[in-house]
Amino acid sequence: MSSEEAMRVARACADQMYAEDDASKSLGITVEINAPGVATANMTIRADMVNGHNICHGGLIFTLADSAFAFACNCYDEITVAAGADINFARPAKLGDQLTAVASEIHRGKRAGVYDVVVKDQEGRLIAVFRGRSAGLGKPMIST
Amino acid sequence: MSSEEAMRVARACADQMYAEDDASKSLGITVEINAPGVATANMTIRADMVNGHNICHGGLIFTLADSAFAFACNCYDEITVAAGADINFARPAKLGDQLTAVASEIHRGKRAGVYDVVVKDQEGRLIAVFRGRSAGLGKPMIST
Amino acid sequence: MSSEEAMRVARACADQMYAEDDASKSLGITVEINAPGVATANMTIRADMVNGHNICHGGLIFTLADSAFAFACNCYDEITVAAGADINFARPAKLGDQLTAVASEIHRGKRAGVYDVVVKDQEGRLIAVFRGRSAGLGKPMIST
Amino acid sequence: MSSEEAMRVARACADQMYAEDDASKSLGITVEINAPGVATANMTIRADMVNGHNICHGGLIFTLADSAFAFACNCYDEITVAAGADINFARPAKLGDQLTAVASEIHRGKRAGVYDVVVKDQEGRLIAVFRGRSAGLGKPMIST
Repeated sequence: MSSEEAMRVARACADQMYAEDDASKSLGITVEINAPGVATANMTIRADMVNGHNICHGGLIFTLADSAFAFACNCYDEITVAAGADINFARPAKLGDQLTAVASEIHRGKRAGVYDVVVKDQEGRLIAVFRGRSAGLGKPMIST
Repeated sequence: MSSEEAMRVARACADQMYAEDDASKSLGITVEINAPGVATANMTIRADMVNGHNICHGGLIFTLADSAFAFACNCYDEITVAAGADINFARPAKLGDQLTAVASEIHRGKRAGVYDVVVKDQEGRLIAVFRGRSAGLGKPMIST
Repeated sequence: MSSEEAMRVARACADQMYAEDDASKSLGITVEINAPGVATANMTIRADMVNGHNICHGGLIFTLADSAFAFACNCYDEITVAAGADINFARPAKLGDQLTAVASEIHRGKRAGVYDVVVKDQEGRLIAVFRGRSAGLGKPMIST
Repeated sequence: MSSEEAMRVARACADQMYAEDDASKSLGITVEINAPGVATANMTIRADMVNGHNICHGGLIFTLADSAFAFACNCYDEITVAAGADINFARPAKLGDQLTAVASEIHRGKRAGVYDVVVKDQEGRLIAVFRGRSAGLGKPMIST
């Protein structure tokens, strides 16, 4: 497959996933495919995402990273799910912060894969690092 | 401190946290303290929490577990934050499922702690296991 | 399969694995099957396992836990490998300490499984908690 | 502190640690500081490190990565311990393989840090990825 064709497949998978992803949409998360296996997700922290002291709930930072991960690992027209993930929080994110999560493929075996996601704020400060573990189900995602 | 007094402190911390936790509230998460270091959180999966095929976004399952963890590790009148967490997904959760996350203390050192959270659905089926890592900040939470 | 038969299979798998496990043997690790999916491993901390101040290298505590995990997840006559693991250290272990690692099955899906291992010293103090992720290869382990 | 001075401190910490690290030495692990926060560790897989089929025990791959991590996070003349770590195995390593683990600093806060370690074999193939969590104890390591 040419790299152009690979990119076309990756974008078709992303479009189909995003169309159905009401969870990401309701959180205002947008996603872009940068290359097969690489995706960027953005989210602005709203008043309904914070705890006391206007600090974002860690679960929603995880959710942003998890969305970037899901789009990065579903670039190959094979339905792929999250088996699990690990996250480390570096710094709190606050109300109004614009977060960017970039997911990159570290390893992709026959079934299992590993993806790293780095979450930063609008100043480029590190908010969290996330490592996702994917499991391919061996079924195509897009009808051709 | 008597165990009654410990429970009173734990509940006072939880009340104060929950009052400010707009993120958990906006997801319909409720939380209960079972004992110092043990908390239960509940969430029903809504239409704005699912992906295609009505499967709950993994990030929101993490968020439920993370809320249970936050309340379990903040039972001692010391402000305690999540340093990180690891989650493994066992089975997808679906639209309408009523999830219950029970967080229990595994270890609590001078600063760092480890809490396990088990997430099940209304049939008692395992949805996910979560292991949270806490960091105490050495500051009191409730004014006395 | 009767529970007696399941236990016979589990022990046959363990015997075959242990016979070939020069790594565990060279560290003095012994292993026992308690039930299908549950295994106990023991190790005494030797002079060649410590860093300065006679504290055991964390990698060798992980190795003990990983051995217990390997035997617990290989109880079903299906070759099963470690896909990964997470460990949290609670307390240092010292020269001469007798460590016990108990591995228990938390979840076993079609391919993937999750096993918890608790490592304690001879006084019953918590040294580390380990959570292993297994991947079944779909091939039998013992020739029958 | 000049970068030359920072490098001198990093090497002095490493020399002191390695002198006392009988565990790493007994496994034939050698370590080099590349820069403050970056360390490389090497290990050749011996007959006493393998399971059946001449595959290296995962615990010893973890141990190699953990050694690289320990030297990377102890570059600042502050005694720093491993709080925990997560590892994903990509490919088995075999008898005779020469493994290289490179540890790099991802985040270093007041107390807690995150370090990534990539383990490869002599052909440059990925064997494992490791993410270590460090905890600084606030005490100097080298006497000056």
